[in-house]
Amino acid sequence: DDDKSATAMPEAAASCLSCHGASGRPVLPEVPIIAGQQPAYLERALKSYREGLRNGGPALVMSGIAADLSDEDIKALAQWFGEQR
Amino acid sequence: DDDKSATAMPEAAASCLSCHGASGRPVLPEVPIIAGQQPAYLERALKSYREGLRNGGPALVMSGIAADLSDEDIKALAQWFGEQR
Repeated sequence: DDDKSATAMPEAAASCLSCHGASGRPVLPEVPIIAGQQPAYLERALKSYREGLRNGGPALVMSGIAADLSDEDIKALAQWFGEQR
Repeated sequence: DDDKSATAMPEAAASCLSCHGASGRPVLPEVPIIAGQQPAYLERALKSYREGLRNGGPALVMSGIAADLSDEDIKALAQWFGEQR
């Protein structure tokens, strides 16, 4: 598909798209839209999941995914999703 | 301003707008855009804050605000912000 962002999609983004939606529209109603979200917020949310500051239900899924992400991964993901529309 | 949504703004929304932005654009970069977000996600996030499932930094602000919200308030807020663009 056409390149929707200035930066290439980070490899780690592939695992996000299964729930958050390749087109920026999430698969499930309880999953947040992250396309176009504030990068600084996405970065903080991912770090909150990585550090186990968010608990309950879906947070378990996100904590598992975020556990493997480096600060650089998180910055690149936050930047890329922030650019999506 | 013109009525941007089918439903009237819930009274409780006033306290959200100070950070999340009256125009749907947040005041601070780390504050998420909630205008146009999935209502079911907003509802779950508010309940997570109310039940203390989210911790660390800004979560303290949100937990304080969410503590006073009833299920009906939360549903109305999630619905209204979901309709904003």
